[in-house]
This record gives sequence, structure tokens and C-alpha cells, in this order.
Amino acid sequence: MEKLLKDYKSGKITITEVLDKLKSLPYEDLGFAKIDTHRPLRKGYPEVIYSKGKTTTQILKILKTMSTHNQNILATKADKKTYIAIKKQYPDAQYNEPAKTIVIKKQTLKPKKGKILIITAGTSDIPIAEEAKETAELMGNITETLYDIGVAGIHRLLDNKEKIFHAAVIIVIAGMDGALPSVIGGLAQPTSVGYGASFEGIAPLLTMLNTCAPGVVTVNIDNGFGAGYFASIINR
Amino acid sequence: MEKLLKDYKSGKITITEVLDKLKSLPYEDLGFAKIDTHRPLRKGYPEVIYSKGKTTTQILKILKTMSTHNQNILATKADKKTYIAIKKQYPDAQYNEPAKTIVIKKQTLKPKKGKILIITAGTSDIPIAEEAKETAELMGNITETLYDIGVAGIHRLLDNKEKIFHAAVIIVIAGMDGALPSVIGGLAQPTSVGYGASFEGIAPLLTMLNTCAPGVVTVNIDNGFGAGYFASIINR
Amino acid sequence: MEKLLKDYKSGKITITEVLDKLKSLPYEDLGFAKIDTHRPLRKGYPEVIYSKGKTTTQILKILKTMSTHNQNILATKADKKTYIAIKKQYPDAQYNEPAKTIVIKKQTLKPKKGKILIITAGTSDIPIAEEAKETAELMGNITETLYDIGVAGIHRLLDNKEKIFHAAVIIVIAGMDGALPSVIGGLAQPTSVGYGASFEGIAPLLTMLNTCAPGVVTVNIDNGFGAGYFASIINR
Amino acid sequence: MEKLLKDYKSGKITITEVLDKLKSLPYEDLGFAKIDTHRPLRKGYPEVIYSKGKTTTQILKILKTMSTHNQNILATKADKKTYIAIKKQYPDAQYNEPAKTIVIKKQTLKPKKGKILIITAGTSDIPIAEEAKETAELMGNITETLYDIGVAGIHRLLDNKEKIFHAAVIIVIAGMDGALPSVIGGLAQPTSVGYGASFEGIAPLLTMLNTCAPGVVTVNIDNGFGAGYFASIINR
Amino acid sequence: MEKLLKDYKSGKITITEVLDKLKSLPYEDLGFAKIDTHRPLRKGYPEVIYSKGKTTTQILKILKTMSTHNQNILATKADKKTYIAIKKQYPDAQYNEPAKTIVIKKQTLKPKKGKILIITAGTSDIPIAEEAKETAELMGNITETLYDIGVAGIHRLLDNKEKIFHAAVIIVIAGMDGALPSVIGGLAQPTSVGYGASFEGIAPLLTMLNTCAPGVVTVNIDNGFGAGYFASIINR
Amino acid sequence: MEKLLKDYKSGKITITEVLDKLKSLPYEDLGFAKIDTHRPLRKGYPEVIYSKGKTTTQILKILKTMSTHNQNILATKADKKTYIAIKKQYPDAQYNEPAKTIVIKKQTLKPKKGKILIITAGTSDIPIAEEAKETAELMGNITETLYDIGVAGIHRLLDNKEKIFHAAVIIVIAGMDGALPSVIGGLAQPTSVGYGASFEGIAPLLTMLNTCAPGVVTVNIDNGFGAGYFASIINR
Amino acid sequence: MEKLLKDYKSGKITITEVLDKLKSLPYEDLGFAKIDTHRPLRKGYPEVIYSKGKTTTQILKILKTMSTHNQNILATKADKKTYIAIKKQYPDAQYNEPAKTIVIKKQTLKPKKGKILIITAGTSDIPIAEEAKETAELMGNITETLYDIGVAGIHRLLDNKEKIFHAAVIIVIAGMDGALPSVIGGLAQPTSVGYGASFEGIAPLLTMLNTCAPGVVTVNIDNGFGAGYFASIINR
Amino acid sequence: MEKLLKDYKSGKITITEVLDKLKSLPYEDLGFAKIDTHRPLRKGYPEVIYSKGKTTTQILKILKTMSTHNQNILATKADKKTYIAIKKQYPDAQYNEPAKTIVIKKQTLKPKKGKILIITAGTSDIPIAEEAKETAELMGNITETLYDIGVAGIHRLLDNKEKIFHAAVIIVIAGMDGALPSVIGGLAQPTSVGYGASFEGIAPLLTMLNTCAPGVVTVNIDNGFGAGYFASIINR
Repeated sequence: MEKLLKDYKSGKITITEVLDKLKSLPYEDLGFAKIDTHRPLRKGYPEVIYSKGKTTTQILKILKTMSTHNQNILATKADKKTYIAIKKQYPDAQYNEPAKTIVIKKQTLKPKKGKILIITAGTSDIPIAEEAKETAELMGNITETLYDIGVAGIHRLLDNKEKIFHAAVIIVIAGMDGALPSVIGGLAQPTSVGYGASFEGIAPLLTMLNTCAPGVVTVNIDNGFGAGYFASIINR
Repeated sequence: MEKLLKDYKSGKITITEVLDKLKSLPYEDLGFAKIDTHRPLRKGYPEVIYSKGKTTTQILKILKTMSTHNQNILATKADKKTYIAIKKQYPDAQYNEPAKTIVIKKQTLKPKKGKILIITAGTSDIPIAEEAKETAELMGNITETLYDIGVAGIHRLLDNKEKIFHAAVIIVIAGMDGALPSVIGGLAQPTSVGYGASFEGIAPLLTMLNTCAPGVVTVNIDNGFGAGYFASIINR
Repeated sequence: MEKLLKDYKSGKITITEVLDKLKSLPYEDLGFAKIDTHRPLRKGYPEVIYSKGKTTTQILKILKTMSTHNQNILATKADKKTYIAIKKQYPDAQYNEPAKTIVIKKQTLKPKKGKILIITAGTSDIPIAEEAKETAELMGNITETLYDIGVAGIHRLLDNKEKIFHAAVIIVIAGMDGALPSVIGGLAQPTSVGYGASFEGIAPLLTMLNTCAPGVVTVNIDNGFGAGYFASIINR
Repeated sequence: MEKLLKDYKSGKITITEVLDKLKSLPYEDLGFAKIDTHRPLRKGYPEVIYSKGKTTTQILKILKTMSTHNQNILATKADKKTYIAIKKQYPDAQYNEPAKTIVIKKQTLKPKKGKILIITAGTSDIPIAEEAKETAELMGNITETLYDIGVAGIHRLLDNKEKIFHAAVIIVIAGMDGALPSVIGGLAQPTSVGYGASFEGIAPLLTMLNTCAPGVVTVNIDNGFGAGYFASIINR
Repeated sequence: MEKLLKDYKSGKITITEVLDKLKSLPYEDLGFAKIDTHRPLRKGYPEVIYSKGKTTTQILKILKTMSTHNQNILATKADKKTYIAIKKQYPDAQYNEPAKTIVIKKQTLKPKKGKILIITAGTSDIPIAEEAKETAELMGNITETLYDIGVAGIHRLLDNKEKIFHAAVIIVIAGMDGALPSVIGGLAQPTSVGYGASFEGIAPLLTMLNTCAPGVVTVNIDNGFGAGYFASIINR
Repeated sequence: MEKLLKDYKSGKITITEVLDKLKSLPYEDLGFAKIDTHRPLRKGYPEVIYSKGKTTTQILKILKTMSTHNQNILATKADKKTYIAIKKQYPDAQYNEPAKTIVIKKQTLKPKKGKILIITAGTSDIPIAEEAKETAELMGNITETLYDIGVAGIHRLLDNKEKIFHAAVIIVIAGMDGALPSVIGGLAQPTSVGYGASFEGIAPLLTMLNTCAPGVVTVNIDNGFGAGYFASIINR
Repeated sequence: MEKLLKDYKSGKITITEVLDKLKSLPYEDLGFAKIDTHRPLRKGYPEVIYSKGKTTTQILKILKTMSTHNQNILATKADKKTYIAIKKQYPDAQYNEPAKTIVIKKQTLKPKKGKILIITAGTSDIPIAEEAKETAELMGNITETLYDIGVAGIHRLLDNKEKIFHAAVIIVIAGMDGALPSVIGGLAQPTSVGYGASFEGIAPLLTMLNTCAPGVVTVNIDNGFGAGYFASIINR
Repeated sequence: MEKLLKDYKSGKITITEVLDKLKSLPYEDLGFAKIDTHRPLRKGYPEVIYSKGKTTTQILKILKTMSTHNQNILATKADKKTYIAIKKQYPDAQYNEPAKTIVIKKQTLKPKKGKILIITAGTSDIPIAEEAKETAELMGNITETLYDIGVAGIHRLLDNKEKIFHAAVIIVIAGMDGALPSVIGGLAQPTSVGYGASFEGIAPLLTMLNTCAPGVVTVNIDNGFGAGYFASIINR
């Protein structure tokens, strides 16, 4: 902006040109964009496509726009068919089948110091855990996983207390009764795993929101991306 | 019935009399009543008045009918005003203020051998616990209580493991996230304690219904009577 | 533990070894595990896999771990495809198709004395009843069934009053209005059978929770395993 | 209308007058009003005021309009204060306190032949039953009541089978689990009586809507007026 | 019964035989059965199978039991596949495809005098209307239908006012906003037709329950059978 | 009507004929129809078929009736199969595949002056936007679209402020959190796009209803037709 | 801005001053504010305080800031106590008690040509209607009201067809079943009037959202202000 | 532990004593307690009492136990009456009336470097914001507040961009539509502020859970303590 004004003063550009340029300035420099500062524009943040409800054509078109930047790309909730179509044009694309994530890596970030520990209550919660893991790793985090720590496995927490102690952030993923985060604390991620009065994840969501344990926050049902993303933000 | 038929055959009674008698037989002896056998007609079961929504006049009238039997009487969800009115006519009536129960004891039952252990997650769950306790004790059970075993107090479980081991039945009462029964097991009793998305007890109710721990059954929100009653039935 | 300490005192093992051993002691001997005493670690309790949402590969892997123990194994909510895959590696596996249960029996338990009676309101409730039955029988219970005791069949209760009288525990399974447990009492099991405002089992669940009949407790919708399991626990 | 046309032809009235009159004809004679025939315009139907949410001034104003007709008047959900204000101006007004109904009787209808039997599951359901009773009686029906036929009283149905057999219409009123109409059939009336997961009457409403018993229809929670009104319509 | 007693007195049968016979008396003659009098045992009432959730084998087995009686049979919510299987064994079976009903007629009832008029708001509500129609006709009623009287067609009410006037009972079937019964009155039948916030029929169900028009009662969502059945009961 | 009366007076027609004619007058001229004036009978309004839940046969039959008028026809929520069947008989029919709309244009309306701007939060909201667009255009409106103005694209609002300023009506379509209308204002259209606790569009619907921004009104979830229609009405 | 740049070029101000000024420019001139153009900053729009949940002190403080502008002020959902406190400092303040609105009028707007017609289904809906009326009038609209056009009064629509024809915008306000807007069309405003399954306004809200009548949009329950405001916007 | 074993070896203590001591070891040293490490036992974390539903006597008793430690004490959701009672015994107690928090400060923590910024959408959200503020400050954080950044105030975000840029953690508190966190990001805190379909905070809760903005996590409705606590944990 300073340069713009100087050029104007020195006569290099006319007042009309200044006004035009001011209007076409990348919005980042204007007032509104400032609010955007917590958004994924900073170095190291991936560009993200939520694939559900989008056609392959739409996804490819979005990818084309994105790939002019040098940022890593993450597609979530993507089925295999979509992946195969993408793979043809982006041979670097990698698919995590349970996680339903596609990753196109353009840069390898310097790994952060703190580890993110991802714990699931059951085996059926693993897909959401993997989505969180892919997200966190793409954002430069080192992750560890402890899967299937439910009723029958809660003693395994003891066997893994070192991991728990040393984790910078813990994501706890559970469906059904969603009680695990009340025991461990951390970033609570409900899943739609369950039956009967689990109501596609509402029951564990409510459990987590109502936890008596302080230090628990919640993301949306089955939102592994959101959990991984937020964990990465607080893993400084 | 056999005697009836014999009397008829021997001419002691006429056919009309037999038919009349058959019609006026206590319904307990007829088909339908047989279904009723799991109901509180057996010795030792109290007569119960759910007081909410009833006027004092109505309660006194019900009490009058009841008191011709020799069974113990339990009024639940009764406010103090009701108690005072009852006390005047039934000087033996006793009030447990937090539990909101009135007890009129007519017989002391031989105590059962097994103990019923009543555990609450928080201090605010105590009224429902006391309602369960009054019910269980009136039905001849010995009870023990462990109150306030929530987030900050879960280690007290360890200090009380003897109690937990030796209890014949455990009632676990919790509001908010309702996660405690998932840890301890037993008869789960949700309460309307909580705020925000606890929805007057729906959140803990759902947690308990969806628990991954087998061996957990649930009664209605704030239904301390139901918990105490069922615990007594299985405490044989 | 005592032996450990004595060996240490006698110099058989070093202090480092004691500390290591203490750490690796089966958690059953440590504080935390004590809470676990109501859990399925005791003799006669099966190992259980909730199959829904798990891949066949995952289930086979879990089975492999389990089969090093000598406990009976129960897989619930398992489809036929899963059963066929398991059957190849575990020829003893048996499938109950309506119940969707797979049983691998390693030991035959001494049958308990009390009988568990399983009643359904309708024909469509039978799968959940069968799941409860398989669970209860694998845990050493003798079961009897009374199916289709709904509107048109309630008089059959009369024809079966002996069964009802002599049952140690009664499981009552109903969808739609869920009114049957209010009539019979016992362990109430709602199912997702119904239409319109039945809301996948919420209507019968609410009916059961709100029953005016004392002595009724409820498990989650379609949770035949939970009903069978709890019935077995109280059938002492 | 015929007369109107004749007068016009004979010159008694001008064409403008005919058109004006046609416009001001009571709408009952025009097309639209025909739809209204199931509405309370026929002889014997009361005029009704739903009092909740109306000020006493508003109610008095409505009464003033109504009282130019010769129809009976019924105010529902009216508190005592309202009644006292009305009584001053309408000395014939009568109040049923539990029912919260005010009746101003202007004509006594010839009683219908069939009886309407009103049954409640509990004591707390009586106010709604009384509202139904007042409505039905004001519409020329003879009513009978059987109150408090719940869990403990279901055998009383047997003692009253004559009444049940001979009733032209049966209204069954229940809160809590709402299971009674499934047993008796008839016009089901849920009430907001209950606690915990009764949700102000939703639980019994759902039970009634989902009943497996055919021949059951439902009105809104606590809508004693609606039940009495519909019972009267079908009591021909 | 009288004969039984006389035979016994005259020595034709022994006391053991009397007692046995009393036990095996059709339950209709004993106390409990009396409650059942509003149930479909009376002449002219069909035997009904709710087909959803039942296997073809189960339905055929039920039919076999039923067909020893001489009552008409109605299967609701039956798919075509089921019909074809039934047709092979019961050549008289008739299928109404939109209604999804199968009828096996064994007797033709004397038609009742009053007509039942069935009105739908939209074209998509017709299947439920047809289910109500089949039910009502099988029970000896004459029916008329007025389909598609929604927003665009409400004037057709005027064109059909004769029908509306002369109907003994009116069933009004609507999905979406469910407002039609508020205009016409009668027996309101919500359907799951709609989208968005219609919630599978909850929206029209609520509209109908909350109608300001007196004289409206409601049956469960998509429960054409229930509507037809109740309409038949009140069409005397 | 005046003519009718004059003819009658002059003896051209008899009184019976007048009465008959009055009865058969198009209902538009009678009282009731007047209410209908906000309905789609006026010039330029299309005839509309909501295709979901209707068979192709039913749709063709409705089309046949409609096509005797000279109005444009719009079928919403129509699948491709339906379109192909229609196309055979109505070669002018045009299909918008994402919108799932079929249009049969019989007249081209004079375009209105104001533009309707249709904005979506995401790519997945486009089908509903297209449905709104087809509706609005068929009713003679000029439309503009701004798709995918979500989190990542909100700055594009700035780039398009001219469009926003000059739009006569703005439709804002969003699923997930539904927050966009709170920022832009206008006619809010929730969609069922989302996952987890979005509950098929309830979450954005509630957001829009609860918006703190005045000047926002809401239509039903996924009701693109309703949004386009209302926008057209206020675009005078 | 142009002046700013010229001053800078001519040396009147330094580059630092330009940059500072650009930062402190009223946000209206920057990008972001442009979005705000549909907001109440334009002439004639009142400043609005939602009073519920605010202390009198807070309201007075807000009023103080507002009153430096020359815009009309509207406080909604304000109780009488708040009004009395305000009246002391703002003697021009006027209270509409049923509407719970306080108006401080600083300018009289030139009345718009079109009339806004406000219709309620019942007497209890009047407070919300009055809130809409106060809002619309303060924004320069002429309003008319038609109260109590419910079941008993629907014929009054006919008597008022002129009003309905000539209204520029119609607001239809209803609680209970919310069916009125389906009949009349327009801007639908649900209220929390009702009982039983009306659920504080959810039932009429759903009816309105699901209306089959096109041309209906909905605002939040009891949001008379929102209805009045939007009606004013479209009344151009 | 090592010392214990050495003492035992050296004969200072007997084997019985070792076993006893092992049992009575503070549970922190045993397996289970390790899980507790994310709990508030570490230095600087306050002891917390949730006051709602507790009697003053109960609170005083809890305080007595707590005050033997040297930790700061925080009572949330406490009414003034409770405060006055506490103040008498703990003269250092301080009350924040809108926040409804009581603080008893025993130690002043070294302030953390990062600032926590607390933003509310409206004035009515301030009490929850103050509760978060009190919590965060007691845990050693420096806080800043930006209240009333709703519809009318969103431009103030621009005026405060420095604060937003430099905050270590942002808590965004909103009722009604809950849209603010979608714009700002951060830790989202729904409140029960609102009316109509806000459902005591469910609407903003759903908005926040469903936000399209990544980097947003949610705590329970009105749970200012939870927000402040979690913000403090991530403000390292």
C-alpha cells in the first residue's frame, strides 16, 4: 500500500489508478479480511474439500483452482470412485480407505514437537480416528493412536500411561454412550456408531457436552477432520 | 373350587348359587388375576402413593383405604405440607425431607441378607438416592450409600472397594453426563440434575441406555422409587 | 504379591525386578481393576464382539486374540457373510440367523436352576428375543419362550400362567406401543418394530421407562444381548 | 334466496338491492359455509371459549356476543378468578374446579340414549376426565366415570364389566406410560401427568398413537374438551 | 357352564373332568376375557396381519391358523412378493397394490347403511387412503373417495358438498402441513408424505393433534388400517 | 351476475335456471374462492406438480388436465426417468438435472425489472439453488447466481457487491451451520446438506429462524421452489 | 477518499497520515461494510433493542448511545417496569402493553402507499400481532388488523375480502395447529399459544414450514418484530 | 515405593506392613490414579463447586474440606444468598453477580503470557462471558472482553482487530442463531439466550457444532466455566 501511495505521489500512476487498485487489492489487505486471520490461509494449513454431496466433476474443478497454490490438499468423506478419478490427474494423491481421505502433498512441513494422541472407544470408531489422524499429520503433527479402549479395554490406558502423560493433545473418539472423554478428558469426538437410542450419534454427543469433567470440548458427530484440525491448532 | 363343586353335588348349594359364587370369586383366583402375580400383593411389599398431582384430600382418602390392610405405606414425591397433614391423622408417619418420602410402618420385615449399595455421582443426586434408599429399606433391605463419587471423587471407589465387592445390588445415580454407570455397572438411575444440553435428564438417560458396559439396566429419570423397588426384587 | 515380596527379601530377585513386576502385574491385582469386578471376567461369562460396523478382517483378528482364552465367544449383530468367513477358521461356530448371533462354545456351563422366560408382543420382535435367548443360554441359563403375545394373543398368557409363575426372570420384548411390560412386569426390551410415530423404537422405549408398574427396568432399543446378559446376572 | 329473486322480479326490490343482499346473505347459505357443517352450529352444540391466554376482559367480551344466541356456553381451562368475574354478570354460571370449566346453561338437551364411560388410569388424570365429562354432559350425554384404574386397580375393570359392555363410547385417560387404552380400546386421551421421560405427555401420546390395538384414536394431550366433544359426536 | 354343572351333578362327568373343563373353557367366558370385548372377535371383524417385518413363511403360518375360522382376512403393508406366495395357496386372495393390502374374503357382510367418505389432500396420500378403504369395505362399509383436495383443489369440496353432507364418517388424510382436517373435521390421518421439516409425518401429526377444530381425532402416521377400522366402528 | 339477474327479470330464464346457474357459477365468483386470490390462478403463475411420491402415470394424468390451460408448467423433485416419459408426449419439456425440475413453457412472460440474486454457501447447495432459479425464471424473473460463498469464499461477497446492491431480492441457501443469511439477510433457504448434528437440515433451519438479523424469513428445508416462488411474488 | 489522496499528493498530509486515515475511515466506506447494506442503517429504519435478558441499566445505556442519532427507537419484549424507568428519561416513550413494545419516535416517516394487513387466528395471538403492528407502523407503514379469525371466525374472511384483496402484504399469526396461513397465504408467524403437543409453538411452526400453499414464508415463533420488519421491507 | 521395599528388606517393617502400606498408598501412586492426570490436581488449578441444586449447608461442608488445601476455590452458578452465607465464614470470598461466581483466592498465580479474548454476540450473553472470565483469571490468565458484537456491532471487530490478532485464545459466546463463531472461529460457547425456536440454547449449539469453519470446538450451553477452563488449558 505504501508503495502504491508513493508511486501515486511520484506521478507514476494516476489517482484513478490508485482508486482502482485499492478496490482490487487482495481482500486480505482490507478490513474485512482481517477477521479471517484464524482461517487456513497461513503457511502449513491445507486446502480442504468436503467431498460428500459433490460430483467428481465439481471436485476436479475445485482441485484445479487449488493446485495453483503450493498448499497441501485434503479431501474428506471421499469415496473410492472419486479417488480413482483424481488419481488419474494427480498421481501423487493418496487414499486412506477407512478414513475416506485423499491427500495431495505438495510440501512436507517441519514436524511440531508435541504429539497428538488419538484414542477410540471401539473398533467401529476407527474411520473417524483415521480422518483426524490424516488431518493432523498433513498439518505437521506427529500422531499416535490407541484404538479400542472401551469397556473391555479400559485397563490398557494403564499400560499406556506414558503416552497419555506425554501427549500434547488428546482426541477421544467414542460412539454409543460416549463416556470415555469423561474419564480421560481432552478433545471429545462423538461418532454415529451405536444402535437403538444412540440416534446416529446424538447420545454420545450429549454425554460429551454434559460431561462433569472440565477441560473437555466437543466437535460435531463424525467430524474427524474438525478434531484433527483443532488439535493441530492447539498443538503449538 | 373343588369344595364348591362337592357342596353343589351333595345338594348343599343350588346351581344358581354355584354360578353366583364363581362370578364373585376373588379375581385372584380367576384367570386374569394370575397375571398379577408379579405385582405388589405379596407379603412385604409396601402400598405406594405417587403424591405429585394429587391433592392432600385425595391422598388422605387413599391412605384411609390402604390402612385397613396391614402393609407398610410409602408416599413418594410428597411435599412437606402434605406430610404435616398426614402426620395429624397418622402419628407414625415419618418424613425424609430430601427424599420427599413419607413412610407409615406397620410391620418390620425380617432383613434380607444381601446389601443394596446406592452410589451417586454428585451431591445434587442425593434426593433421588434417598428416595431409592427409603423404598429399599421399607422392603426389608439393608442399604449402604456412597455419595458424591463424581469426577473429583472417583478414587473413593477404590477406598470403598470392599463395599462394592460385597453389595448384592448396586444402584448408580447420576445426572449431567450420566457416565458413572458405564464405569461401575448395575442399576442405572438418571436424574434431572444438570444444565444446558442435559435436557432435564435426557442426556444421562441416553448415556445409560447406550452404555457399552453389559449388565446395566435403566429406570426412568428421577425415579428413585423404581430403582429401590427393582433392586429389592433382585436382592433375594 | 506376598510371594513376590518374600522372593525379594530372600534375594531371589532384585529391587528393580520387584518394581518391574509390580508394574506388569495383571491389572486385576491393582486398585483400578477392582472396579472391574462386575465385568465379564468371571468364569462363565462369554467374550463378546459387537459386529456391526466392524469388517470381517477386524472380527477375525479380535477372535484370534480371544481364542487363546478358554471362554465362550458370542458375536452379536453379525450378518451371514461374516458367519461364513468365521466358520472356515472356527468350524465349531454356530449361527442363529434371525438372532444374527454367532456362538463359539468352548465349555458347557453347569445349567443354573432358575429359568428365564422370554416373551414377545409380536412376531417381528422375535429376532431380538432370539438374541437375548442365545446370550442367556451361552451364560448357562435355561430359557423358555412365549412369542406373539400381543393384542390378539394376550389370553395366551393365561394358558401359560405356570411358565410365568415359575420363571426366575422374565424378559418382555415389544415394539409399537411397548405396553406389554406394563402388564407383565420384568425386564423390558423395546424394539424398533413399528411405523409412523414409533420413531425406530423411541415410542416403546418411552412407554417402558414411564410404566406405572413398579419392578420394570429397561435396556436399549433392539439390545437383545443386554437383556439376556442382565437376566443372566440376576438369575442366581 | 328464492323469495329474494321473486321480490326482485315483482319489482319490490331493485337489482342493486339484490346484489347487496346476496353479498350480505349469511355466509351459511353460500358455498363456503357448507364446509362448515361439521362445526358447532347445529342445535345442541355449545359455544366454546378456550380461556388460557385470554384476559378476563376478553372473555367477558366474547361471552357478551355469545349470549345473544340461545346456545349453552362452555369455557375451558378457566381459573377460579375468571369464574368469579363471570359469575357476577352471569349468575347461572357454574364452575367445576378440578375440570377448570365454566358452564352457562341456557337449554337442557334431551338426553341421548347411549352412555359415555370415562376411565382414568390414575387420580392425577381426574381433572382432564372432569373436563371431558362436563363437555359431554353439556352436549346432552349421560356419563359414567371409573377413576384410578391403573396398575393397582386394573382388576376393577372386571368388577365393572357391565359398565364397559354397555357404554356407547369409552374415553380412556392416562398419563405416564399411557398403556391403558391398549388394554381397553376406545378414545385415548393422554395427559401431562408423569415425570422423568414422560415429557409433559409425549410418552403417553406416543404409546396411544402406536397402540397395537385397533379401534383406538387419540386427541391432544390434556384435551379433555376434545375427547368429550368427539365422544358426543359418535354417541348417536 | 350351566350344562357342565348339571352333567357333573347327574354323574355324567367326574369332578376332575369339571375342573379340567373349567380350565380349558374358552377364555372368553372367564373374567379376563371380558375386557377383550372391544376386540375383533365379534362377527364381521376381519383377522388382521401386519406384514411388515414378517417373513413370508411366518405370514403363511399365521394364515394357516386363521383360515380355520370363517372370518375375512386382511394383510396390511404387504409387498407384492408376499402376495404372490400367498396367492398360490389361497387363490381367492386379492391384492390392492397401492394400498399394499391382501384380502381373503370368506363371507360377504351385509352392507351398513352409512357411507364412509375418504378424502386425501394430495395424490401421494392415496396409498394410505386405499388401505383405509380396503379395511372399511372388508368390514361391511360402503366407501366413497375424494382424492387430491389440496391447495389447488379445495374448491372441489364445494362441488362435492352432497357427499360431505351425507357421509356418516369422514376420514381426512394429509401429509405435509396436515391442515386439511382443520378445515373439514373428522378422523384425521397423517401421512409421511412431505419433505424438509415434515419429518416423516410428524409435522402433519402435530397439526392434527393441535387442531383448533373440535371433533377431530387422530390415528398414527400412515396407519390407514387404523383409520378404516375406527371409522367402521363408529359407522353404526 | 348482473346480466343473469336481468335475464331473469326479463323472463329470458326461469327462477330455477337462476338458482342452478348461481350454484354452478365458477367458484371464483362466490364467497369462498375470494380467499384463493393469493393462489396461482393469476396470469403468469405456473401450474406446479410436486413429483416425489407420484407415479409417472399419475404425473402424466395431471399434466393432461393442466395442458388444457395455457399456463407454464413446472414439475419439481422429478427424477430423470419421469422426465424421459414426459418428453415423449411433451417434446417441449426441458429438464434441469441438478435442480430436478421439468419445465413446459407455453408462454414467455415479459421479464420483470428487478433481479433475483441466488447465493449458496457451498457447492452441495447448488441443486436447491437451481430449483429456485428455474421457478423464478419461469415466473418472469431475471436471476443471477453466486455459488459457493462459504467460509473460504466469503470475500467473494466483496467482489460482487454490485450484484448484492442491485438485487431486488436475495435468496441465501445454506446447509450445515446455516449462518450465511445472518450475514447477508434476505430470504433464507436451509438445505439438508451436512452431517453429524445437522439432522437433515434442522440445524441450518434453526439458525435461520433464530437469526439476530432482522429482515430474514425462512422457507422449508430443500424447498427451492418455495424460495423461488416467494421471491417472485415480492419482486414486483 | 479522492480528497484524501489529493491532499496527500499536494503535500498537505504525509504518507503516514494517509495510512492512518485509511485505517480509521468509517468502516462503511471499506469493503466489509458494504455487506451491511441490507441492515438498518438506511433512513427510516428504527434502532432496535431486544429487551429480554437485559437489565434496565443496560437498556438505558444502549438508549443513550442510540439517541445521539435521529432515528426512531423500538424496544421489544419490554416489561412495564422497564418502560417506567425509560419514561422518566425519555418522556416521549410510548408503551403498547400487550405488544410489550416501547417506541421513542423522533421523526414521522412519510407513509407508504401499500397497507399491511395483520390477521390472527385467535385472541391469544394478539400480543404478537401488536408487536408486528408497532414495528410496521414505526417503519412508515399503514396497518390494518383482523383478529380472531380462527375456527369459529373463518367466515369473517369473507366479510373482509376487500381488505384482503387490497393489502400489499398479509401477516398471518397463529398458534395451536398453525393452519391459517395455509388457507390465506402470506407471511406466516407462529406463536407459542397452545397446549399439549403444541410444544411452545413448534407445532404451528412446522405446519407453516410444511404448508402446501406456495407463497408462504415463516419467521421465528413469537417474533412479531421480525414479521413486521420483513413486511415493511417488501412493502415498497 | 523403593524406600518401602528397602525398609522391608532391611527388616524395618514386616511383610504385613508392606502389604498394608501398598493398599493405603495414596491412589495417585497406583495405576488407576494415573488416568487422573488431566484432572485439576496440579498446581494452579482451582477447586470447583457447581452450586446449583446444592443447599447452602452442603456447599459450606464442601468448602470446609477444600479449604484444608491451599488451592483457589471457585463456586459457579451461585446465587447471592449462598454468597452471603459463605462470606460470613470466608471473608475473602468475592462475588461476581452477573457471573454468579464466588471466588476464594488463596494464592496469586504468575500470569500466563497469552491473553484470552472473550467476545459476546449480545448484551444478554454477558453473564456467561463473565463466568468464563472469572474462571480463566483465577487460573492465571489475562483476559480481555469484547461484548455485544452482534448484528449491529460486527464492524466493531474491525476496530478491534489488534486484539483479535494478538489473542492466544478466543472464546466466542452467542445465543439465538449462534452464528458468530462461524465468522470468528475459536472456542464456541452457546447460551440459552433467545426465544421461539431457540429452544433454550439448542439452536446456537447446533449452529456451532455444524459450523463450516474449521478450528471451532464447542462446550455445553451456558457453560462459561467450561469455556474458561479449556481456554486456560490451551493457553500455555
